[in-house]
Amino acid sequence: MSAREGIAAGMDREAREPTILQFVPFSSAVDAGFWHHFTQLKLDVLQLSEQAVPVVGSYTNTDAPGLPPRLHVEYDALERRKAASRWSCHATGTLINTNTIEEFRNRNKQDLLKACATTLWEAITSGQALQDPSLLASFLMFTFADLKKYHFYYWFAFPAFTYPKAVYKKPPQSFTDDLTQKEIASLLASYTDQEADFDQGFFCVTKSGEEFTIHPLRNYPNLRAAADTQSNQEVYLGISDPSTLLSNPGWTLRNLLTLAAVSWSKQWQSYKVLCLRVRTRNGVQDASHSLMVEVDLGEEPMPLSPSEMPLCLGWEKNERGKMGPRMVNLSANMDPTKLAESAVDLNLKLMRWRVAPQLNLGVVQQTRCLLLGAGTLGCAVARCLMGWGVRHITLVDSAKVSYSNPVRQNLFTFGDCQSGGRHKAVAAAEALLQIFPKMNSKGVVLSIPMPGHTVGESLLNQVKEDVSTLEHLIDEHDAIFLLMDSRESRWLPTVIGAAKQKLVLTAALGFDSFLVMRHGIREVGTEASLPSTTAIPRNSIPGKMLGCYFCNDVVAPGNSTHDRTLDQQCTVTRPGVSYLAAGHVTELLAAILQHPDRGLAEASVKEQGNVKEGVLGPVPHSLRGFLGRHQLLTPASTAFDQCSGCCREVLKAYMEEGFEFLLKVFNSTAYLEEVSGLSRLHHCVDDSQVWELSDEEDME
Amino acid sequence: MSAREGIAAGMDREAREPTILQFVPFSSAVDAGFWHHFTQLKLDVLQLSEQAVPVVGSYTNTDAPGLPPRLHVEYDALERRKAASRWSCHATGTLINTNTIEEFRNRNKQDLLKACATTLWEAITSGQALQDPSLLASFLMFTFADLKKYHFYYWFAFPAFTYPKAVYKKPPQSFTDDLTQKEIASLLASYTDQEADFDQGFFCVTKSGEEFTIHPLRNYPNLRAAADTQSNQEVYLGISDPSTLLSNPGWTLRNLLTLAAVSWSKQWQSYKVLCLRVRTRNGVQDASHSLMVEVDLGEEPMPLSPSEMPLCLGWEKNERGKMGPRMVNLSANMDPTKLAESAVDLNLKLMRWRVAPQLNLGVVQQTRCLLLGAGTLGCAVARCLMGWGVRHITLVDSAKVSYSNPVRQNLFTFGDCQSGGRHKAVAAAEALLQIFPKMNSKGVVLSIPMPGHTVGESLLNQVKEDVSTLEHLIDEHDAIFLLMDSRESRWLPTVIGAAKQKLVLTAALGFDSFLVMRHGIREVGTEASLPSTTAIPRNSIPGKMLGCYFCNDVVAPGNSTHDRTLDQQCTVTRPGVSYLAAGHVTELLAAILQHPDRGLAEASVKEQGNVKEGVLGPVPHSLRGFLGRHQLLTPASTAFDQCSGCCREVLKAYMEEGFEFLLKVFNSTAYLEEVSGLSRLHHCVDDSQVWELSDEEDME
Repeated sequence: MSAREGIAAGMDREAREPTILQFVPFSSAVDAGFWHHFTQLKLDVLQLSEQAVPVVGSYTNTDAPGLPPRLHVEYDALERRKAASRWSCHATGTLINTNTIEEFRNRNKQDLLKACATTLWEAITSGQALQDPSLLASFLMFTFADLKKYHFYYWFAFPAFTYPKAVYKKPPQSFTDDLTQKEIASLLASYTDQEADFDQGFFCVTKSGEEFTIHPLRNYPNLRAAADTQSNQEVYLGISDPSTLLSNPGWTLRNLLTLAAVSWSKQWQSYKVLCLRVRTRNGVQDASHSLMVEVDLGEEPMPLSPSEMPLCLGWEKNERGKMGPRMVNLSANMDPTKLAESAVDLNLKLMRWRVAPQLNLGVVQQTRCLLLGAGTLGCAVARCLMGWGVRHITLVDSAKVSYSNPVRQNLFTFGDCQSGGRHKAVAAAEALLQIFPKMNSKGVVLSIPMPGHTVGESLLNQVKEDVSTLEHLIDEHDAIFLLMDSRESRWLPTVIGAAKQKLVLTAALGFDSFLVMRHGIREVGTEASLPSTTAIPRNSIPGKMLGCYFCNDVVAPGNSTHDRTLDQQCTVTRPGVSYLAAGHVTELLAAILQHPDRGLAEASVKEQGNVKEGVLGPVPHSLRGFLGRHQLLTPASTAFDQCSGCCREVLKAYMEEGFEFLLKVFNSTAYLEEVSGLSRLHHCVDDSQVWELSDEEDME
Repeated sequence: MSAREGIAAGMDREAREPTILQFVPFSSAVDAGFWHHFTQLKLDVLQLSEQAVPVVGSYTNTDAPGLPPRLHVEYDALERRKAASRWSCHATGTLINTNTIEEFRNRNKQDLLKACATTLWEAITSGQALQDPSLLASFLMFTFADLKKYHFYYWFAFPAFTYPKAVYKKPPQSFTDDLTQKEIASLLASYTDQEADFDQGFFCVTKSGEEFTIHPLRNYPNLRAAADTQSNQEVYLGISDPSTLLSNPGWTLRNLLTLAAVSWSKQWQSYKVLCLRVRTRNGVQDASHSLMVEVDLGEEPMPLSPSEMPLCLGWEKNERGKMGPRMVNLSANMDPTKLAESAVDLNLKLMRWRVAPQLNLGVVQQTRCLLLGAGTLGCAVARCLMGWGVRHITLVDSAKVSYSNPVRQNLFTFGDCQSGGRHKAVAAAEALLQIFPKMNSKGVVLSIPMPGHTVGESLLNQVKEDVSTLEHLIDEHDAIFLLMDSRESRWLPTVIGAAKQKLVLTAALGFDSFLVMRHGIREVGTEASLPSTTAIPRNSIPGKMLGCYFCNDVVAPGNSTHDRTLDQQCTVTRPGVSYLAAGHVTELLAAILQHPDRGLAEASVKEQGNVKEGVLGPVPHSLRGFLGRHQLLTPASTAFDQCSGCCREVLKAYMEEGFEFLLKVFNSTAYLEEVSGLSRLHHCVDDSQVWELSDEEDME
């Protein structure tokens, strides 16, 4: 038998004689937006906690006939403290969420309801509910949120006591039977005139002549005692009645009558109640469909103490009329892009729940990443960054997708190779959007100018433009990944990155080995930042003194692609090597961003040395992996003061002369060696070699 | 001035008086198929070698008028030793391929031609060419193959000497001017009657009365000397003439006349030459458009020695009429699928060129891989296997693609998540085909039955079928990857894999750590294979004694997914971890397959210990990576004789009782502990703990 059928049956009986009053139960109505907010709360705040969370419910007495009384939980039910709308009455809710479906199933429902009832009982017996009657409209929300599938299981309880045991009432009376239009208008005027902080759900009403006045509920005993001595005064209990049925008030009256029985049963057993309902017809408010009920609570003795709490009922039936939870599947009717967005967040936030609560996900997600090279490494690093929640990725490459690429370059398919092949940068950026539509990804087709790759007159303007494009790109990003397959193409971004003090990371592959490193961050222009060979640290190297990709070289990068055989042109590697390098370089960025000193984090000189750590552990200077031997080393080295990529003279020349300097380097590697001082070094080396040779000859 | 214009101009002159004979040069005609074969040869055999390679060319004297004389290099020009077709004349070619475009550009072309000419000159002066006249139709093919883009650069040279300096000829004569139809028919009959090993390109001809007879070229001096004494005999030099022009013979005659000048100029300065051309008209062969040329070589003295080689010419002009190479871009007009196929092979074969010549690519490519789990690991491993050239991959998963998946699971896109999500196994298998159309990939939607996941009556048939499907899948594959995210789902494939002696590999992820391992290969049914605790090896463990995933456990796998919170259900990991695990597990398979003992390869007990290695180095038992500490360990451990996954009792029970045994395990983990002996172990442990406790109490 459904609630409405029950009510209808009750109506048949009540037409004949005074009978037991029946109340229309609430139907829960949860806004889909609420589940979104709840998901956020769960991920960001609650995490694994199963503690009760306050939730604001509301109901209205303005519904059209035929609608069930609904207890609304709006999208912002977790944030606001009160139901705000003029015609919304506040209901005090408690949300308890379990972490697993099994716990949701197995939790003892009677205990849950009892805990909720105990609070309510205390509010009633202590007089607290008289001061704050919205406590009488308490409810419990018991939930399990399957955040991976966007399935939300929930079960509402609207606790109500079986006390007084029965409420007898006189045959139903509609307002219009009892009150004049003038009286109804007076009542309505007083009702709508209330202050904002007045509890609209529960109140009391006095009638003096034809004039009605609304009072706070707590005034009832005094007003009734006064009225009992005056013949022209009447006092009513009042509710904003969510029920729309002709002769049955809504569920909220139950607990009001419990309060009356608990508080005043020694003085009064019968009460007149105005169940106020308001409707606007043709712009005019009307309350003539409200109910006036006269009830008799009987001579129930008040329980002696809170421990003698009467039985409490109130679990809501589900759609099938069974005692059981409801489920809403929001995956279907949500915007798929939004769904993807929150799903991606989910996996990341889960990390903070247990394993890494200090993790700052925001800083990773907001890092704008520039990937120079959209080949095997570029594709893999882009995907791995997406796994970390990075949203802003720009890929730079001048090549097109060739048939050998897709099996190793994980953003491309066979289709990208046909008809000459799509530009890698463009195809990769598009692929990122196909993976996750919220990406801010861009592909830039650009050849990076290189030392020793002579720039003829015809190319001059193009190269100038390319340098400028690269400079702007580096300006606009926070982390620069050097993922190209030639040594000299790393030179220009190394210089620009150092001059602009960006985070620069390098990954490079061998046949079964790889190098991953972060470049030291130079304090441009200050002498203090210059590496000093006289003060090589013994245990760790500060971030600003760490070397760059070129610091271990004693020759400037030259045209190495020139005259290379096919196996040298392709990066001939065991396929797994790129996985290791891509994973490590991405995690190196993550570790840097989670370190309090960021790019300036010190690096240990010794393997497993003792240095300042971040949330994700120590941040090495470089990782060198050797797949054949299954070795992973983390060497750190200081910057080299004649480095062709980051020494003071090179950065100074670039910052002062700009493109003019770069052009000289493109046209002559020797010039770069001259500026950096490498050529002086060579002379030294040459001299010493000659010397040693002479020496040996002498000895023979 | 093009060749034909030059010839036309010559014709004007020759109509008036004896003049210098001009020869129509060859045009090179390389079949596209040749480049495919050459690509294979380069990848598989030549690799980095730039040594000269013999190549077979051919030309014909049956072309229609208007066609230029073409030197064909057919698709099989690298394999066959002779031009085979009846009407094809053999040309002896030499192919020199450079490894870089720069080398192709910069190589001294005069030196190249001179080297080729020297060989030809030696053949002529030594008499070798007289015995094998096809040497006179020598050619050089100088190439650079850009195998990544399928661009082939090539430059032919058809070497010819400027000796004799000039060849004077009498006004042109067509056969029909000089010969009767009967004579022509006689010539043709003799020509077509030759033996298969007769060199059709160069020969000599005698005429006796109206009868023509063809002879090998080497007989010319004797025949001519004899004819000089007889009035009714005439002797001609003969070529199968590739030219179709009325009055100009083809290029091949040049070197024949050089041979005549070198060999016989003391005896004879003038020669009659039959430039034989054959055409079939209305089913009848005709040679009436052949040329008869009478030439005068002048009284050029024979050079004294091979070192006095005359100047040699012969580089072919390109399409633009310039001295320079031609280029053919085969990427556009090749079947894209084929292109992809050879491109994928290319990258792999490159590995063998320099770094790993012993690498057996075939064994990796032919390994049929079964991936249980098509999530983060499954996707990444599938891609990495493709990088190794594996063609046969089957993915098994029962889940659907959810919105959080694509950023971590690199075979899925946003589109796969919509409308409830596609089955991961199916979507992944399809993605493999989109990456590389030649894949033999299949997706199987299957839940793997697990210990402790009770099988009710209603599920019994389904579970039985699932077990059977899994058994068949394992039968049909060589390497089984356990890439699931729960411990107990690995149990069934571990047991089946061990019973069927398959290569089983496991990868599992932690938050910032991973485990990758190979299962030991049990010698099922023999006592010898059982691990013996009394003989734990000190330095290395043989493959058959290595443990499986469960060997370190002292409890049987149970229902761990039951009652797990969201962060436990999802594999909450730093994104880079899956890259490391996927890379390592794939490379572990590669290393196993390249080891002479395959799955039975011994594993070192010590880090960096000394064990038997394969082409890709030693094969560890397991790899444990710790990203936070940047550590990679390779522990090895022996099989556990009460292991719930691979001990003798469990394998015996499975092999004897089959599904009945499995069902008992699904319904009760305790049963599995009973069979394996783990429960006995628990009792022992409990006893010993009690004992120790009592002991300590005694001591106090």
